[in-house]
Amino acid sequence: MPSQKVKVAFLPCGDTRIELLCPTSEDSAVAKFIEKKGEGIQHIAFAVDDLPNALAESEAKGITLIDKEPRPGAHHADIAFLHPKSSMGVLIELCKEKH
Amino acid sequence: MPSQKVKVAFLPCGDTRIELLCPTSEDSAVAKFIEKKGEGIQHIAFAVDDLPNALAESEAKGITLIDKEPRPGAHHADIAFLHPKSSMGVLIELCKEKH
Repeated sequence: MPSQKVKVAFLPCGDTRIELLCPTSEDSAVAKFIEKKGEGIQHIAFAVDDLPNALAESEAKGITLIDKEPRPGAHHADIAFLHPKSSMGVLIELCKEKH
Repeated sequence: MPSQKVKVAFLPCGDTRIELLCPTSEDSAVAKFIEKKGEGIQHIAFAVDDLPNALAESEAKGITLIDKEPRPGAHHADIAFLHPKSSMGVLIELCKEKH
């Protein structure tokens, strides 16, 4: 993912995947995360059927959005992040895979 | 789980589950985790078929074990934790459910 300055590997695990992220530049968001919080679990992602609607629902419930609009992610998916301050420090991604 | 001084709720999510943990005492391991690291993702658990063998394999690969022997966990499972220093700060649980 050159646009995000990360190398990504997905490890299938049942119908879940473990995503390994490695920053390729000091100014990538993942590098900044590691610098601030250390290595570890960076985020958790949930697949949704309708990403714009899921974002609208989240915002209506008072959740702060990092991405107000879906953007392209890895694995041929549209993605959007919710702000961790709305989920007890857990960075949450919503994703809609294009099959 | 009175023995662990936590309240536990499982939220099914595909063939994965989100486990919500709430300490019921200041001296529970989960309370200590929150005090040290803040709220957030506490651990990730993998189901295995043969827990004693998975622990032996992990140790043989140089992973430090927190639990050298399986112990009873929530959800009618035997569980054991690997030490986060062996996995870049990620606390990993191995579990074998009894069906």
